[in-house]
Amino acid sequence: MAVRRSPTAAGTDSGLLSPVWAGTPVEALTSDEAWLAAMVEFEAALSAAQTRLGAVPAGTADAIRAAGGAGALDPVELARIGREAANPVVFFVKRLTELVAAADPDAAGHVHAGCTSQDVLDSAAMLIATRALTLVRDDLVRIRAALAGLAREHRSTPAVARTLTQHAVPTTFGAKAATWLTLVCDAHDRVDAVLRAGLPVSMGGAAGTLAAYHDHLTGACVPDDHPELLLASLVAEELGLARPTVPWHAVRTPIADLAAVLSFVGGALGKFAADVLVLSRTEIAEVTEPAAVGRGQSSAMPQKRNPVLSTLVATAARQLPVYALVLGQSMVAEDERSSGAWHAEWQPLRECLRLAAGASHTAAELAEGLVVSADRIRANVTLTGSSLVAERLSVALAPELGRQRAKEAVTRAVRDTEAGVPAAEALRGALRAAGLVDGRSACLDSLDELLDPERYLGAAEPLVDRAVHRAGPAAVPLTPSEELETTS
Amino acid sequence: MAVRRSPTAAGTDSGLLSPVWAGTPVEALTSDEAWLAAMVEFEAALSAAQTRLGAVPAGTADAIRAAGGAGALDPVELARIGREAANPVVFFVKRLTELVAAADPDAAGHVHAGCTSQDVLDSAAMLIATRALTLVRDDLVRIRAALAGLAREHRSTPAVARTLTQHAVPTTFGAKAATWLTLVCDAHDRVDAVLRAGLPVSMGGAAGTLAAYHDHLTGACVPDDHPELLLASLVAEELGLARPTVPWHAVRTPIADLAAVLSFVGGALGKFAADVLVLSRTEIAEVTEPAAVGRGQSSAMPQKRNPVLSTLVATAARQLPVYALVLGQSMVAEDERSSGAWHAEWQPLRECLRLAAGASHTAAELAEGLVVSADRIRANVTLTGSSLVAERLSVALAPELGRQRAKEAVTRAVRDTEAGVPAAEALRGALRAAGLVDGRSACLDSLDELLDPERYLGAAEPLVDRAVHRAGPAAVPLTPSEELETTS
Amino acid sequence: MAVRRSPTAAGTDSGLLSPVWAGTPVEALTSDEAWLAAMVEFEAALSAAQTRLGAVPAGTADAIRAAGGAGALDPVELARIGREAANPVVFFVKRLTELVAAADPDAAGHVHAGCTSQDVLDSAAMLIATRALTLVRDDLVRIRAALAGLAREHRSTPAVARTLTQHAVPTTFGAKAATWLTLVCDAHDRVDAVLRAGLPVSMGGAAGTLAAYHDHLTGACVPDDHPELLLASLVAEELGLARPTVPWHAVRTPIADLAAVLSFVGGALGKFAADVLVLSRTEIAEVTEPAAVGRGQSSAMPQKRNPVLSTLVATAARQLPVYALVLGQSMVAEDERSSGAWHAEWQPLRECLRLAAGASHTAAELAEGLVVSADRIRANVTLTGSSLVAERLSVALAPELGRQRAKEAVTRAVRDTEAGVPAAEALRGALRAAGLVDGRSACLDSLDELLDPERYLGAAEPLVDRAVHRAGPAAVPLTPSEELETTS
Amino acid sequence: MAVRRSPTAAGTDSGLLSPVWAGTPVEALTSDEAWLAAMVEFEAALSAAQTRLGAVPAGTADAIRAAGGAGALDPVELARIGREAANPVVFFVKRLTELVAAADPDAAGHVHAGCTSQDVLDSAAMLIATRALTLVRDDLVRIRAALAGLAREHRSTPAVARTLTQHAVPTTFGAKAATWLTLVCDAHDRVDAVLRAGLPVSMGGAAGTLAAYHDHLTGACVPDDHPELLLASLVAEELGLARPTVPWHAVRTPIADLAAVLSFVGGALGKFAADVLVLSRTEIAEVTEPAAVGRGQSSAMPQKRNPVLSTLVATAARQLPVYALVLGQSMVAEDERSSGAWHAEWQPLRECLRLAAGASHTAAELAEGLVVSADRIRANVTLTGSSLVAERLSVALAPELGRQRAKEAVTRAVRDTEAGVPAAEALRGALRAAGLVDGRSACLDSLDELLDPERYLGAAEPLVDRAVHRAGPAAVPLTPSEELETTS
Repeated sequence: MAVRRSPTAAGTDSGLLSPVWAGTPVEALTSDEAWLAAMVEFEAALSAAQTRLGAVPAGTADAIRAAGGAGALDPVELARIGREAANPVVFFVKRLTELVAAADPDAAGHVHAGCTSQDVLDSAAMLIATRALTLVRDDLVRIRAALAGLAREHRSTPAVARTLTQHAVPTTFGAKAATWLTLVCDAHDRVDAVLRAGLPVSMGGAAGTLAAYHDHLTGACVPDDHPELLLASLVAEELGLARPTVPWHAVRTPIADLAAVLSFVGGALGKFAADVLVLSRTEIAEVTEPAAVGRGQSSAMPQKRNPVLSTLVATAARQLPVYALVLGQSMVAEDERSSGAWHAEWQPLRECLRLAAGASHTAAELAEGLVVSADRIRANVTLTGSSLVAERLSVALAPELGRQRAKEAVTRAVRDTEAGVPAAEALRGALRAAGLVDGRSACLDSLDELLDPERYLGAAEPLVDRAVHRAGPAAVPLTPSEELETTS
Repeated sequence: MAVRRSPTAAGTDSGLLSPVWAGTPVEALTSDEAWLAAMVEFEAALSAAQTRLGAVPAGTADAIRAAGGAGALDPVELARIGREAANPVVFFVKRLTELVAAADPDAAGHVHAGCTSQDVLDSAAMLIATRALTLVRDDLVRIRAALAGLAREHRSTPAVARTLTQHAVPTTFGAKAATWLTLVCDAHDRVDAVLRAGLPVSMGGAAGTLAAYHDHLTGACVPDDHPELLLASLVAEELGLARPTVPWHAVRTPIADLAAVLSFVGGALGKFAADVLVLSRTEIAEVTEPAAVGRGQSSAMPQKRNPVLSTLVATAARQLPVYALVLGQSMVAEDERSSGAWHAEWQPLRECLRLAAGASHTAAELAEGLVVSADRIRANVTLTGSSLVAERLSVALAPELGRQRAKEAVTRAVRDTEAGVPAAEALRGALRAAGLVDGRSACLDSLDELLDPERYLGAAEPLVDRAVHRAGPAAVPLTPSEELETTS
Repeated sequence: MAVRRSPTAAGTDSGLLSPVWAGTPVEALTSDEAWLAAMVEFEAALSAAQTRLGAVPAGTADAIRAAGGAGALDPVELARIGREAANPVVFFVKRLTELVAAADPDAAGHVHAGCTSQDVLDSAAMLIATRALTLVRDDLVRIRAALAGLAREHRSTPAVARTLTQHAVPTTFGAKAATWLTLVCDAHDRVDAVLRAGLPVSMGGAAGTLAAYHDHLTGACVPDDHPELLLASLVAEELGLARPTVPWHAVRTPIADLAAVLSFVGGALGKFAADVLVLSRTEIAEVTEPAAVGRGQSSAMPQKRNPVLSTLVATAARQLPVYALVLGQSMVAEDERSSGAWHAEWQPLRECLRLAAGASHTAAELAEGLVVSADRIRANVTLTGSSLVAERLSVALAPELGRQRAKEAVTRAVRDTEAGVPAAEALRGALRAAGLVDGRSACLDSLDELLDPERYLGAAEPLVDRAVHRAGPAAVPLTPSEELETTS
Repeated sequence: MAVRRSPTAAGTDSGLLSPVWAGTPVEALTSDEAWLAAMVEFEAALSAAQTRLGAVPAGTADAIRAAGGAGALDPVELARIGREAANPVVFFVKRLTELVAAADPDAAGHVHAGCTSQDVLDSAAMLIATRALTLVRDDLVRIRAALAGLAREHRSTPAVARTLTQHAVPTTFGAKAATWLTLVCDAHDRVDAVLRAGLPVSMGGAAGTLAAYHDHLTGACVPDDHPELLLASLVAEELGLARPTVPWHAVRTPIADLAAVLSFVGGALGKFAADVLVLSRTEIAEVTEPAAVGRGQSSAMPQKRNPVLSTLVATAARQLPVYALVLGQSMVAEDERSSGAWHAEWQPLRECLRLAAGASHTAAELAEGLVVSADRIRANVTLTGSSLVAERLSVALAPELGRQRAKEAVTRAVRDTEAGVPAAEALRGALRAAGLVDGRSACLDSLDELLDPERYLGAAEPLVDRAVHRAGPAAVPLTPSEELETTS
């Protein structure tokens, strides 16, 4: 798309400070140019619908589309003059009408007929949100598949579960992936629900009664007292948007829903990134980000391979719910159209779309390329010796000692083990101290099993199966070896 | 409920600074005592389910319920000692076990078997959230009915639509009510969806594998490799909670969903309150809050009747989405269980529940008793004379003058009218200036109709019908006269 | 400034959706190009300081400045490739070094010596913040002068004070202006304090020890064990930035302070705008925004003159404190340099700077041109008759009736007056009902005075004087008539 | 303090869900009872000041204090009835007046003379904020001393600096402590500045003109046109609060300043806690929280010693800036007194005070008892071998190889070292590959020094000195050995 810029442009914002979305597909979908293009689309759809109702000459919509094509409108100029109306639409309409008039003076008289600024901007926003959200959904499908693959592959790989930063009990690495996967499925389903329900067209006219739309249809061959309602439906149809019950100038449900779902996407991907960041720590090193030329470089330290993808996703997760708050708060908008609440939505909405789609794009690359180190996972499982199964021992001893004393005995045994005493000996000592004659206990007979982290995985594996099952068959690509079996 | 308090209690928080919920039904449902009671419910349900699987003697659940009954546990003491574990459950379990032991030593050995703090607190939170949300839903049903009534009653009452604080075009008062009604329907549907889907039980054990639950079922007569998963389902059943796909210690979807829906309730009711506050302004005075003895008093000014109900609702609307942000941000919780993100959810969740249910309780009273002044509404419609239909005139003149010149002519006529020139004369002058010979125009013939705000309502009335229809039959109580007709 | 753009640019963000700052002076100061220029400034200052310590050949700084001059660096390209390092500096340094090398290969070897990404970006951010904040301060000085003028002019103009949306008691319009003025003074002082203390340079090296800076000074003629600390001071001096106690990679005080002060500016100006919006309401109409060609137009309604400047300011006030929250939260950044908290600061910081300076620019125009309608102010004072002084009556009657009965009597009299009973008669009736024989009271003798809103202004006027005095002599331009007197 | 409670109390909030402040000193200072007590203090101070001006009989203040003493007012009842006025003051005044009347009917007539709800509540809030903030300052002084001690003790203890979660370069543990210390000093200075400036009394009367205060002083022997301004000063004096320029009903600077400083405290302590949580991780284990009986227990896992103090502080840090946002946003309050913005401040302000003081109380215990493991710190320094000084090597080789090739050579050497090649050999290989004949380089001669992390500390030590010096002499307790020296 060629970009027409006024000579006064001193510079703009191309995402230099937002690398999570800079250059990803959502950038072009949400640029000033894209917003203007969507506004042109709306004006064309309005005329097309009015033509269908006999109120506007055929060809008007085409004239609008042609006149408002790529590069015809200067975003910088419209941004600046937009200050005088507190929104960019008033002068957009003026300029668009001039452009149409230059080619087709008759058509120019029908541009924006019966319309108001908010109908144009809100409808354009819904077109753009639909497209950005579709990107997000597609990325979530990819992430879901990748995480389902990870979960399946490591369904039974024993790993350390950590709680409050400390080693807790054994789990499997697949269970970690299943956690991320479940959140991604939840995010996908919420995004998908919004897309399936459809975001609504805005057709309210000056203040939600569509009265001027009505007057512009006077004489149109519509045997209906309220052809303006039919018009609204046709515009929705032209744009592929939904038709709301009543005009939503001051019913900001679509914005609040977008805020909620985009914030959710940020949270879901943010959890994944947070865990990758922890598991990437030099001392833990259970996962590594996918390598690429130049990626993760430090400007100072040659040895560094920074977890940049998860850092980028974390960046989005920190910003998304906060910007979404502005959107949620804009529900409280006084009057039929507000003086500020609406206007404060535009930029945070764009930013939320950019951050969510930038994050999902980035997370897809992260999930698909995540390198899992089975060696380090195993090393961490054995790092604290029998401590990792202290809960199990404590449960096993409870029938003999009672709950509280069992817990105390195990605590003592763990401390001794940490001090170097072999596990069996430490336990026997603790049991003796707890009053068992000679420290004897049935548990000692099965101590090897009791101390084996691989035998204390609980339901980790069937839970992985559940999460993978929920992700659906599409989410479970065959592993290479399975493919071999299938094809042979 | 009698309250046991430690003698050291220096005072607490009973909502003195949160009048929107103080003393409303949600207060008791969300108190410290209620939280402890829900924790006891969970422990009893866990034991009951373990009994059903043969792992715990019958009667344990009853012993727990009896021992942890009203007043048995001191919230102040548990709150304070809870600091040592960063959560109140560890010592709650200790104290509960002691109380059970005093009555039934055997049962005491089975309290909290296989369990972890987060399972108790999260499950209790979901019980409480379900109850508070049910209050909200019931209130929303009442508000919906009241607003549907208002919308219907004033379906055709001409009123001023205001945009950017200025008189814009005519609408009907019913259309204002329809806006509020639509938001309330949206809020209701979102709350209802959460309640119908059900909030989930938390059954993850120490770190999401349910391993200790498994070990506690060893020897139980369950022909299943993973009886702990069955146990989780039974506990959900006992409590009337839903069963999640995987443990949600670190999958905070239920919290994020609650945050979104509670924030939405705040926004929906906040919009209603914001409009009532504007329409109550001394200079506007289209509505008055329902009167009650002592209500709306100022401590200084005898004449004041402050719009207190809408102020209270506005208070909640200002706080809710912000507290909900803490909940949304807590999705990004590292590890299998986090060190802070989880703990930071509890109080904001409680506050969100209190604010949402306090706001809905208050808004129900407001909606049911709102006094609408037809006189003042009419007076405001005529306040600016023909200005209110300037848009219409401008549309009507466009075929003769072209859009831009029509708009300029009307602008000029409006200014002249404001300066005292009669409308017809002002318009004729403007048309003359615009180049129409003698200021002649077809519009002048139908000027009375064009200037009549009651004939420029667009689709306001059928839009009211749509909103009322969507609210459903239950939401449309018969008006007194209709009732007469029906019964006669 | 000519802008070099890569052919792949699909579009950018020029403020189309943020009219509050689009095209205002802050836009150019905070563009991607400005950020790159500030990064070049830092690299040049670093080399210049290293030259002063004898570690780098003279001319290196000039070579850097020349190579990195306007248009040399493509923000779009750097934004996109920045994803690979999660920050734009790594490749900025690479590209800058290439550009330097093309002109001066020797100098190229000294670019970025000992440095790290965060030093570059943080220092650049502080340069830009200093400049944007200076704009804000200058605007606040203008607003302060304008509001002081308004306060002085309307020091004694009786006006309605409104509380909880209702007419309360009389005040003066000057007291309203004094309220806005006081907030603007508070904002000015906070901005000024930050500028006077100075924002800090960032010189920490890879992880806050400046170790590589040290190594790069090896052999330099600095008789100091730690010449790197001297270097840091010199870089600060070169850039006109302050020198922090310790490197602030993970001590985000400067960012938190900026967040607080920018948020405060938004709140202070937002209060002014909120009042202008209320006072502009069609029914109230005490003030009108300054007129300008095309300003305040609606795309639909010819009669509308929307309060666009206050709407724009309100827009900023809604966003600023929320974006600032991201900055405040970034204080909690783990490690010596964090993985996300830092990166999430950049865009919200820029947005806060743009919104604050856009708002102050807009508010200056609003304050300097605000049109006050003495007629409408007076009309509103008399709108509710004696109600406006009900408090006074109630105080006057208290000695005779006791406080509670006095309040009740006045309440009754006010209601009767509203129903059309003349004030004196209504009061006498109320006093009679309250038990005073024949409704007699000393108050009736001075009733005219008691009911005169102009005589119930309390300390409104001296409070205006205080606020104006605090604003300082510079803030009180002479009124035209005073100027006449002075010059004659 | 005995607490009078109405029999209808169904339960309250004693911090069960906020263990960070439950039972800490701030709890009692901010309870409903404390708020009521502060309101009584204000009413007494008002009467005392009015007595000093001759307008109220001596003894009134004492009568108020006596009547409103501990337990006299029921917070639950006042909270509930407060709904009718949207604030608790109206009925508080009524009840207090009744209580005064019962003992001293004459005094009762002077309670709350000329006053308004907001004066009472805002002044009470400032009293409470002053007290809570004093607690915070005292805790910060303790934390400052403890961290200065840590910084000094570990001034030269080599430790790993981590950036983006990865080992970066060496630093000292003292430098880590110096980072925390600097933030704590910054927090202290900001809190201290607020306390020194003083929080303001609220004395505005019904709408900021103090008119009724004036009327109540009629006949008082004050030779001043505006004795109400003198009254305001005297009330401030009585309460030890500051005197604002103009009434601040709608100038919310004090609230915004509190929000900023409390949020800052949360951030400063949150950074400390975040680092403790990372450094406590099982795999890192450089620090351990101070032990106490029962502390850090898990309800399931005997071996766990959870970092509960830092978790509690983290909890506060997550909530504080968000609640503070509500306060910042309340600056935008329309009219002379707003309908919601003010009312929404109360609970978040209390919560911010509780969280900040709870966090500082907790962080003091954490800082004073933090256990630092020199062994683990050393083990982590050597964990990645020569990688930790890769930056240094790269700088050292740059003169021979040029910057880029030096960096590449070191990258290669590091990779080889990780694969098991001895450092010198790996480096020689890399240098050979980089084109140096026989891999010869001056660096190889001083390789031992270049690879020694203890010799690559840059300015870590003098930076520690700076931070400790700034903390001031009081902050640097002598170490035991120094004490010995001093006393011997």
